Amino acid sequence: MDSNYINYLVRPIGIVESCFKEKFGTPRQANLVDSAEGRIRLLPPFADENAFAGLADCSHLWLQFIFHQNRDQSWRPKVRPPRLGGNASIGVFATRSPYRPNALGLSAVRHRGLVREGQQLYLSYLGGDLIEGTPIVDIKPYVPYADCHSDAFNRFADESPVKVDVEFLPQAEAECLTWGGEALRLLVTQVLAQDPRPQYQQATNGRVYGLRIDCWHVRWIAKSDRDRVLYITVIEISE
Amino acid sequence: MDSNYINYLVRPIGIVESCFKEKFGTPRQANLVDSAEGRIRLLPPFADENAFAGLADCSHLWLQFIFHQNRDQSWRPKVRPPRLGGNASIGVFATRSPYRPNALGLSAVRHRGLVREGQQLYLSYLGGDLIEGTPIVDIKPYVPYADCHSDAFNRFADESPVKVDVEFLPQAEAECLTWGGEALRLLVTQVLAQDPRPQYQQATNGRVYGLRIDCWHVRWIAKSDRDRVLYITVIEISE
Repeated sequence: MDSNYINYLVRPIGIVESCFKEKFGTPRQANLVDSAEGRIRLLPPFADENAFAGLADCSHLWLQFIFHQNRDQSWRPKVRPPRLGGNASIGVFATRSPYRPNALGLSAVRHRGLVREGQQLYLSYLGGDLIEGTPIVDIKPYVPYADCHSDAFNRFADESPVKVDVEFLPQAEAECLTWGGEALRLLVTQVLAQDPRPQYQQATNGRVYGLRIDCWHVRWIAKSDRDRVLYITVIEISE
Repeated sequence: MDSNYINYLVRPIGIVESCFKEKFGTPRQANLVDSAEGRIRLLPPFADENAFAGLADCSHLWLQFIFHQNRDQSWRPKVRPPRLGGNASIGVFATRSPYRPNALGLSAVRHRGLVREGQQLYLSYLGGDLIEGTPIVDIKPYVPYADCHSDAFNRFADESPVKVDVEFLPQAEAECLTWGGEALRLLVTQVLAQDPRPQYQQATNGRVYGLRIDCWHVRWIAKSDRDRVLYITVIEISE
């Protein structure tokens, strides 16, 4: 039985509903924007509480998903991850880049339980890096003794990226609190603290950027000194 | 663009060569038998050193694989994991059971580097729970800040399973050291310390079990007191 060249079909068990609607601004790893809420709209026949019985006893989940926005891209042995400034190229299997042979993604998120709304069953989570519409192909419990390696190192990504200070113009802050209260302020702050801009733009001063977070449009500028970002200022939040 | 019901094709990037040749005795999670060596025979076009450039800077890897021995089994919402004694049933998504909708598995292993042998390129690892012939569909670096959740809990599997004491009859110990030295003794000890028997047999005394580890046949018996295993004795190791 030569299983070498058999291909396997995977089917979505659910589809992500996320505050991240576009690639720009979506965190580059799970756990970077821990206030970000998301949920998985479970598809039949998986929209069945029985299949999740016991999951309430697990604090964290693994989501295995398809990088669906990249699946038509061809695979290349080397990629240029944003983490390395977009210049250095390293092997695709040394990165979590979406441009990988099977377009499979993997994220550990905080588990928030099942929610039923009418005929729909959702699984809620916090701290994901998944974009709206992402197909989920498996959900697994986090098993601390097998998954948490406190002695692990990764010289490309040992520490989470440096966070940039984020401030709001008074008008933008008032808008933010009106639209979504403290929760929205925290979410906008955490998203922008990642500095979503491509590395080659990070020396740019004064350009106004826009990004969508949930149903809001956020406009902001960054103040840089040479290639170092000093702070990001939110100038407007609108529907 | 409705991605809900699109299926995705995944293709193996490599095939596992493992000291575990059959399900019986294969660890139930990664990291339980940390001396177990395995390697992935990379398939073309992935047998390319470029695709792994930089991976030497990562101590641990995620292997995403297909539970190929289960892929013809139909999916059920509830399973009876061996960890719970095979009696209690819980939701499949609250377990790492192989009997899951997409038969996708996930293991964190210790990275040991690339090895070229003639035309073949291999990626070596330690501490896997993968059986010979397992198709690997992705290899990713472990990213400590995103993957290691020291605050995570999983009430079904917070601690690694209790290890059983393992002893060797003098003749078996001599055979073991002759065949494979201290490394084989450690491997046999770690495998049997998991008590590979199904839970319903764990009160059985005196039955002789056999299992294959690498190219060796190991015969052993367990001494139990009621439903508690007291120790396991290796009685023979042969080619």
